[in-house]
Amino acid sequence: MNIGIIGFGYWGTNLVRNFSSVKGAVLKKVSDLKADKKAALKILNPSAEFTSSADDILNDKDIDAVVIATPVFTHYEFAKKALIAGKHVLLEKPMASSVKEVNELIELSEKKKLLLMVDHTFLYTGAVQKMKSLLMNGEIGNIKYFDSTRINLGLFQPDVNVLWDLAPHDISILDYLVKEKPYSVHATGVSHTNNGIENIAYITINFESGFIAHFNCSWTSPVKIRLMLIGGDKKMIVFNDLEPTEKIKIYDTGYEIKTDEDRKKILVDYRTGDIFIPKIDLKEALSGMANDFVKSVSEGTVPVSDKMSGLNVIKILEASQKSIKNKGKEILV
Amino acid sequence: MNIGIIGFGYWGTNLVRNFSSVKGAVLKKVSDLKADKKAALKILNPSAEFTSSADDILNDKDIDAVVIATPVFTHYEFAKKALIAGKHVLLEKPMASSVKEVNELIELSEKKKLLLMVDHTFLYTGAVQKMKSLLMNGEIGNIKYFDSTRINLGLFQPDVNVLWDLAPHDISILDYLVKEKPYSVHATGVSHTNNGIENIAYITINFESGFIAHFNCSWTSPVKIRLMLIGGDKKMIVFNDLEPTEKIKIYDTGYEIKTDEDRKKILVDYRTGDIFIPKIDLKEALSGMANDFVKSVSEGTVPVSDKMSGLNVIKILEASQKSIKNKGKEILV
Amino acid sequence: MNIGIIGFGYWGTNLVRNFSSVKGAVLKKVSDLKADKKAALKILNPSAEFTSSADDILNDKDIDAVVIATPVFTHYEFAKKALIAGKHVLLEKPMASSVKEVNELIELSEKKKLLLMVDHTFLYTGAVQKMKSLLMNGEIGNIKYFDSTRINLGLFQPDVNVLWDLAPHDISILDYLVKEKPYSVHATGVSHTNNGIENIAYITINFESGFIAHFNCSWTSPVKIRLMLIGGDKKMIVFNDLEPTEKIKIYDTGYEIKTDEDRKKILVDYRTGDIFIPKIDLKEALSGMANDFVKSVSEGTVPVSDKMSGLNVIKILEASQKSIKNKGKEILV
Amino acid sequence: MNIGIIGFGYWGTNLVRNFSSVKGAVLKKVSDLKADKKAALKILNPSAEFTSSADDILNDKDIDAVVIATPVFTHYEFAKKALIAGKHVLLEKPMASSVKEVNELIELSEKKKLLLMVDHTFLYTGAVQKMKSLLMNGEIGNIKYFDSTRINLGLFQPDVNVLWDLAPHDISILDYLVKEKPYSVHATGVSHTNNGIENIAYITINFESGFIAHFNCSWTSPVKIRLMLIGGDKKMIVFNDLEPTEKIKIYDTGYEIKTDEDRKKILVDYRTGDIFIPKIDLKEALSGMANDFVKSVSEGTVPVSDKMSGLNVIKILEASQKSIKNKGKEILV
Repeated sequence: MNIGIIGFGYWGTNLVRNFSSVKGAVLKKVSDLKADKKAALKILNPSAEFTSSADDILNDKDIDAVVIATPVFTHYEFAKKALIAGKHVLLEKPMASSVKEVNELIELSEKKKLLLMVDHTFLYTGAVQKMKSLLMNGEIGNIKYFDSTRINLGLFQPDVNVLWDLAPHDISILDYLVKEKPYSVHATGVSHTNNGIENIAYITINFESGFIAHFNCSWTSPVKIRLMLIGGDKKMIVFNDLEPTEKIKIYDTGYEIKTDEDRKKILVDYRTGDIFIPKIDLKEALSGMANDFVKSVSEGTVPVSDKMSGLNVIKILEASQKSIKNKGKEILV
Repeated sequence: MNIGIIGFGYWGTNLVRNFSSVKGAVLKKVSDLKADKKAALKILNPSAEFTSSADDILNDKDIDAVVIATPVFTHYEFAKKALIAGKHVLLEKPMASSVKEVNELIELSEKKKLLLMVDHTFLYTGAVQKMKSLLMNGEIGNIKYFDSTRINLGLFQPDVNVLWDLAPHDISILDYLVKEKPYSVHATGVSHTNNGIENIAYITINFESGFIAHFNCSWTSPVKIRLMLIGGDKKMIVFNDLEPTEKIKIYDTGYEIKTDEDRKKILVDYRTGDIFIPKIDLKEALSGMANDFVKSVSEGTVPVSDKMSGLNVIKILEASQKSIKNKGKEILV
Repeated sequence: MNIGIIGFGYWGTNLVRNFSSVKGAVLKKVSDLKADKKAALKILNPSAEFTSSADDILNDKDIDAVVIATPVFTHYEFAKKALIAGKHVLLEKPMASSVKEVNELIELSEKKKLLLMVDHTFLYTGAVQKMKSLLMNGEIGNIKYFDSTRINLGLFQPDVNVLWDLAPHDISILDYLVKEKPYSVHATGVSHTNNGIENIAYITINFESGFIAHFNCSWTSPVKIRLMLIGGDKKMIVFNDLEPTEKIKIYDTGYEIKTDEDRKKILVDYRTGDIFIPKIDLKEALSGMANDFVKSVSEGTVPVSDKMSGLNVIKILEASQKSIKNKGKEILV
Repeated sequence: MNIGIIGFGYWGTNLVRNFSSVKGAVLKKVSDLKADKKAALKILNPSAEFTSSADDILNDKDIDAVVIATPVFTHYEFAKKALIAGKHVLLEKPMASSVKEVNELIELSEKKKLLLMVDHTFLYTGAVQKMKSLLMNGEIGNIKYFDSTRINLGLFQPDVNVLWDLAPHDISILDYLVKEKPYSVHATGVSHTNNGIENIAYITINFESGFIAHFNCSWTSPVKIRLMLIGGDKKMIVFNDLEPTEKIKIYDTGYEIKTDEDRKKILVDYRTGDIFIPKIDLKEALSGMANDFVKSVSEGTVPVSDKMSGLNVIKILEASQKSIKNKGKEILV
């Protein structure tokens, strides 16, 4: 299985490094518009071929799968061409610019029986895998809320707002951990530049069951915070991604709602208990993602970070964007 | 100047302790429906008289000023009676149950030329006073955002939701620190009990200038967080109220927006610099509040935590409540 | 059972409060040289009698037990008189000024069949009780080291150095948790005043088995640290007393020494694993101590913080003091 | 100026990377006993020559300066040969195995008028440079104590104990920041392996003026701590090297000793004030060290991390080792 990578920028470098050592596949070609990237590729992977034209990869019959790490607005075109050319596709996050684009790509991939996958790297971290297993084995109980803060003094992106830049990480984790699908979102935000691109944004995601999710995103905080709270009716999880090793804390903390006989009063039983900090596997997530792509292509299995995960994230981003532009109006997903 | 306190519960105890040692006033009577509180008063202040009837205070011609620390829904009636009886009034937060009630009380107090004040204790803390002086002397610059998180495993209140319980603290600080008045709010929230009282709520407050404020309130977090970020265009403040002494950190951090000549690109200059942690006066805030009340009555001055502060907080709470019940719809303040 | 308390200063206040509500005993009299303390006692315990003479207590035939909370150098005299007068005795920490004094008191108490106890309050905290049970049930394995840091900007005491002021807490915990008794100490320290009273001191305590204990004490640190590390060959404990609730962390971390066949190389197997933070009982330790005293007198049982605990602490303090004065020379305990 | 590096292990890799980009010098040859390191060098620096014999470097007439990054016990021999061959020498820390060896090397370098330098990388960090400038400009006042903790679950070294492994960092910082030279040390420690190599060690360093330094080193802590407290009579510094950006905190905290007229009582005035966290230059320290070496050779200047720094560190390590082996006896430096 031969792989081509389109786009050799900051993240592309990580992809080249990981796909150079993945089992069961060979990195054959890497393209980037900047021809001077050739030397850098030589050092990272002397046997991979460099080209400044993406078409060299898309038209190469020996290439079975394509990894696309270009700016978001180009994802759809490159992925479509690759699928039409019969190649499996891995897209960087966010998967594309709109639900419409993603749906087209999904349809095409199904028709051509090709793998379409998105790189939600976070799903492959030891921390998220640990939370998934805790939720799956029932230890946390029914989830009641999901509250995420991802703020720092970050680069203002010229083409996407803070939502499209930061929230895909957290929304993909939400989508992976929680089975229930949202029915609506509310979002607010503000742009402190005159191009109208929001640098602060808040999203609330509503679910039928009463479960609620909230995201606080900012490029303009003096302190860096990467904090996620997940509250179940049995236990609660705090995921602090800035902790070097103690990332996940499981609190045996909760409350139970009781109603007295005539249902007039609410009685709440509080419980605080032990805390458990499981050892987390700290191996590189991107390596796990690369291996999952190759394995899914080879064996026809569904990857962890599959096309539906990509679609679900774009649905929420698109609805949130619409809500912000409509002054926080509820938008159905 | 003689003072009467109506309501001798948890907070009333603190009020009795502080009004027992305030200069220029004497605590004459304390009332509570529970007659067995008499003994507790004896210990705290042996010379104050106990009564189980609020009317004993309201009808006492020797009492000049009344402090009301009863459940919120009774504030309006007690305050109205006290004002009609010619007494100055200090109300616990939140000031009353609705903007309508507060407006009536304000009108009445002005007509009777009596002081009407609310106890927003936080405004008297060394931390808030330090932030106020930093903002007043221009050190922070123009404020761009205000982001507050106040969450913990808290008591579910039977009559008010988490907004009315927790947000008054933060909204009163916002109102005190920032001159600009809001034009609208969006709020979302969820109740995990069957009485419909929200235990998680998020508010966004919108301002004409592009300044934005956001509040995250919860009774259902396994960890306690009391964190406020205030971003100016010169410096930014982080106020962590759980730090025993290092509550306020001032970051010489910021970004400056530049536009190139043809205004097509946004250029952002980032700056991270020194951090300063000023020594904070840790004296009890409630004592400052009690003294401010007595001084304002005696000297006819306007207290820090005045009736307009009370009104502004209720306006936002009422609008937020309405927004939650209307699925996050924007509500003008 | 009637109790008298000699000494009504800062700590005496806490003792009066706790002995006022202890079961099975009545606080009859409290003495202090300062006659104006009478009013304060009236508030805390209206039925206890105040006296400015300790002899009023020591000579009162109705008093069965005496609590001594006076400066250290007076402990021996008061305790001796009380024991001779047939009263059970509880001494504040440190128990007395020298091993000789403590031994005399122990001998006297045994002869008179009276309880002699020292108030090592820390032993009654939920945190220390939790550590004791972890060590007793074998979860930590054989202890290899004990490392304690207790530093802050503290009051320079006029009569005792930083060792006698701060180390008794940690040494009493060491003595309680670890069965093995020390054979020698080394201590170094420095005085920054011209009275020669050390404000910084370091102690190493040596044990036959290779277990080692170390104490870092200072009145001159800009930051407050209360940190204890206890390393076993199975697990390790970190006790951070400044954490409001998460005081004890148990690390499933360790190393195993292996030697290869010809014993030339040392092979070490490292293990880092999960971390567990048990819920700690946060009830007031002093209340537990007061109850233990009354119970031990009534039932003739041995209290947790018994006279041998007091003796062991004084032995180490005395030896450490001698080591400091002899330039860090090893002193046998 | 041509450079050769002897030893291409873990740290040698960092040296090769930094000497490959240093200005004013060319990395000509790198030697390592393991011939298979050739490929790794090819990637890092394709133009440098690989050899498996150190003599190829020592006998190369075109090489002006040699960097020695081999095990400590070999430092002396390699450095001596290099100096005799007329080459400038940079030694990894610790400089050599004994004071005797270091003194010989120093003498030889002076006779041959060659630069002899040691790589105390920490001195080139932004944090240490900031502390140096604070101390130089008098802001901290006279230093009273220096307290360092450097503990973690670390590799047990087969040939050197925890002192020789961890303490050189902290001792070199002490030597750099404080002008006064020590007159004696006390050290204690313990080995939990049967080879007698200590894995826990404590050093106290004594100075004539009453200044005291203490070092706590361990390979067997479940938590990683890198904390240094430096107390001056004006201000105090806390250096926490694990903080990603806020490494240095300057406390305007102190105490002033006063004596009353008849000098019987000690009066201490306490002061706690603001805290300042300066922005620290986070550029790679090793690059600064490499540039300092090349510049010092070229211009004949004295490097920050010069041979006397190396000597002073070895003096303390040797004396500490002797003290440990003599049961904590005071050893003059």
